[in-house]
Amino acid sequence: MRAYDIIRKKRAGSALSGEELSFLVTGFSEGRIPDYQVSAFLMAVFFRGMTEEETFGLTDAMLGSGAVLDLSDIPGPKIDKHSTGGVGDKVTLVLAPLLASAGIVVPMIAGRALAHTGGTLDKLEAIPGFRTSLSVQEFKENLRRVGVSIMGQTEEVAPVDRKLYALRDVTATVDSIPLIASSIMSKKLAEGIDGLVLDVKCGSGAFMKTPEEARTLADTMVKIGNARGVKTVAVITDMDQPLGATIGNSLEIRESISALHGEWARDLREVTLTLGAWMLHIGKNRGGTPDEETIERSRRELGELLASGAAFRKFVAMVDAQQGDSGVVLRPDLIRQAGKARKVVADREGYILRIDAEKIGIASMLLGAGRETMADPVDRSAGIILAKKVGDHCGRGEQVAELHYNREDGAVEAGELFLSALEIEPRRSEPKSVILEVVR
Amino acid sequence: MRAYDIIRKKRAGSALSGEELSFLVTGFSEGRIPDYQVSAFLMAVFFRGMTEEETFGLTDAMLGSGAVLDLSDIPGPKIDKHSTGGVGDKVTLVLAPLLASAGIVVPMIAGRALAHTGGTLDKLEAIPGFRTSLSVQEFKENLRRVGVSIMGQTEEVAPVDRKLYALRDVTATVDSIPLIASSIMSKKLAEGIDGLVLDVKCGSGAFMKTPEEARTLADTMVKIGNARGVKTVAVITDMDQPLGATIGNSLEIRESISALHGEWARDLREVTLTLGAWMLHIGKNRGGTPDEETIERSRRELGELLASGAAFRKFVAMVDAQQGDSGVVLRPDLIRQAGKARKVVADREGYILRIDAEKIGIASMLLGAGRETMADPVDRSAGIILAKKVGDHCGRGEQVAELHYNREDGAVEAGELFLSALEIEPRRSEPKSVILEVVR
Repeated sequence: MRAYDIIRKKRAGSALSGEELSFLVTGFSEGRIPDYQVSAFLMAVFFRGMTEEETFGLTDAMLGSGAVLDLSDIPGPKIDKHSTGGVGDKVTLVLAPLLASAGIVVPMIAGRALAHTGGTLDKLEAIPGFRTSLSVQEFKENLRRVGVSIMGQTEEVAPVDRKLYALRDVTATVDSIPLIASSIMSKKLAEGIDGLVLDVKCGSGAFMKTPEEARTLADTMVKIGNARGVKTVAVITDMDQPLGATIGNSLEIRESISALHGEWARDLREVTLTLGAWMLHIGKNRGGTPDEETIERSRRELGELLASGAAFRKFVAMVDAQQGDSGVVLRPDLIRQAGKARKVVADREGYILRIDAEKIGIASMLLGAGRETMADPVDRSAGIILAKKVGDHCGRGEQVAELHYNREDGAVEAGELFLSALEIEPRRSEPKSVILEVVR
Repeated sequence: MRAYDIIRKKRAGSALSGEELSFLVTGFSEGRIPDYQVSAFLMAVFFRGMTEEETFGLTDAMLGSGAVLDLSDIPGPKIDKHSTGGVGDKVTLVLAPLLASAGIVVPMIAGRALAHTGGTLDKLEAIPGFRTSLSVQEFKENLRRVGVSIMGQTEEVAPVDRKLYALRDVTATVDSIPLIASSIMSKKLAEGIDGLVLDVKCGSGAFMKTPEEARTLADTMVKIGNARGVKTVAVITDMDQPLGATIGNSLEIRESISALHGEWARDLREVTLTLGAWMLHIGKNRGGTPDEETIERSRRELGELLASGAAFRKFVAMVDAQQGDSGVVLRPDLIRQAGKARKVVADREGYILRIDAEKIGIASMLLGAGRETMADPVDRSAGIILAKKVGDHCGRGEQVAELHYNREDGAVEAGELFLSALEIEPRRSEPKSVILEVVR
């Protein structure tokens, strides 16, 4: 078997066998097949796509490159949530302790901010002392004791995915559905979980710009998960505006703490409770097909756990278990704030139709809150507070956002970018639901 | 400017500017842009193609990576011929001395055998002592003294082309028209020539499988050449059977010597004289549009130079000038022959409709006459003599070819491959002309 022939076959639009994909992935992983052949292959996949069977094969090949965590000695259903990446997406911070407080074990391997999207690890590290580099031993110990733990990728789990992603990132081959699906699912299947709920973002701030693309990605991942014994559901959610009211690590931690106290933006609440209801359903009743009533009951159950403070207490326990300073969780005003703030005011009057999430993510990056490359430092206190959401009215000169930052150099540009992200119309359109579709 | 953005732009199907192409080629040439980004770019070009303007820009960028030979101090019109690569294509060996005997200066930078195609340098090196690694100084001295010289690529001329071709060769991105056109034309424009005649092969043994593809490639190269001040004509020729009667280095040298004595296969004669007539026309009458009569007169002139022995004497002078043993040219039976021979006989009766040149090229490679990778050694005495050409009748069991080889291991497979390359039909079809079209 030769890498050349595999590239050529894919280039011609033929489907590759599992053996061919495994040969390529293993060879790349072990350094026998050079980067330049793999990047040509990736570009051919971008243009030709992959059959379902091929995407399964690629996922298996990547999964096979590393270890699968064994969580079988931890009692309880192990259910994870994964988002394809958005702007202002702090759902995990609320959802993980919430589900743990409902008796679900939540083992999360999370990522970092890149380009216009945020990362759960960066947000958690805004809590002083919070450790995200855990050993598998510590991770499992936390799961057993607290019921939830969130850590970064380890060398053991799907190591080839990191290498492949790094290559995709510099060769413009990230946004290919089979490559995204196999990357996500190989990592998630390696977690040793029983169930998975996927948040597939759709809109300007997401990789999937249209509902059709989002549905194809969701469908592919759901099929892979279920075929490999992990009950999987995908919820397609709208990313035509940032989720919730803040963007930036410290700001999002504070917003998450408010949410755990029951004060949150409508869209953040809707996404969190919908994903949570499906996680709870899968965790309690594996494999069954729920009616609306069952899902509604799960939502109510989660609402009660929030109202009773159980979810918040679980968050505190998780922060304690990972050596974070839970004092700041109890008094969020102690979390470090940026030194400078700047108002952004509307340049015309009307109703907000859309807030381009990608532009807001880039504006936030300009303020220092994100990173362009994995090597860049992140200013955890920088970010944006939205004063308006889609559907709101704003007057000319009225404040639409507040920028928080320490370094001056990107602030003016960020403000201009923010304004350019706003679509303002004279009449109010009924805002669409943030939940677009459930794929299972 | 970033390589990433250039890849992404090409991937989206947008046209790149000359600055962008130059940035990419220069960066690659100087080692600043890594192979893996360039191979992703090349695959994107394979799928998206390039506009005429882009192909010009890519050619200029490659040309700019090295030196352009200065032949202005050599009197006479400098005209080269280039073939896109075929099987049994020994045209250069006859054409170069023939045109030199007509007063045209022929400065040829030639290539080596790769995959199923042969290479002029390997053929010339079947003449004992023949040197193809010349300095530019020696090359120019030969041109001045003999009027013709054939050498291999040098470090000075279009160095990035070798690096880029090596990358294309292992990433399945060779057969892209803009990449082929810019590769050929950047090398040819760097020769400092006044005119160029291109032999664009079309058929199973060629990169261009259809007349449409061949025409596009021919048209692209003719436009590039003329736009850059080199009068360029392309002749599209048929490669649905090997050219002439032999394949393999020593065998083709012997066939070329016979041709210079006026004994040659009809197709080899036709291609050689047509290309030669155009070279002569360009050389004598730059820029004019010839009528058929003019071209016919050029053909007759070349025929006379063959008949008088002037072309053959020029060949001997060229061999002498490059330290080859001209004794074997005068007595070709002295050229080393392979130790073993094996007949191939037809497995059915009928008329030969087609001899798949690609398969014959591979059969010849199996006998040791070619190389799969640039590092492989070549057995110069191995090869194939065709006993039949398209249009000929053969009886069942009648000999259709003779295989020449030294190593036994590939001979049986080569014989089977040869037979599978034959299309034999009960009725005779009128063979088509080997000259398909002239593009200028």
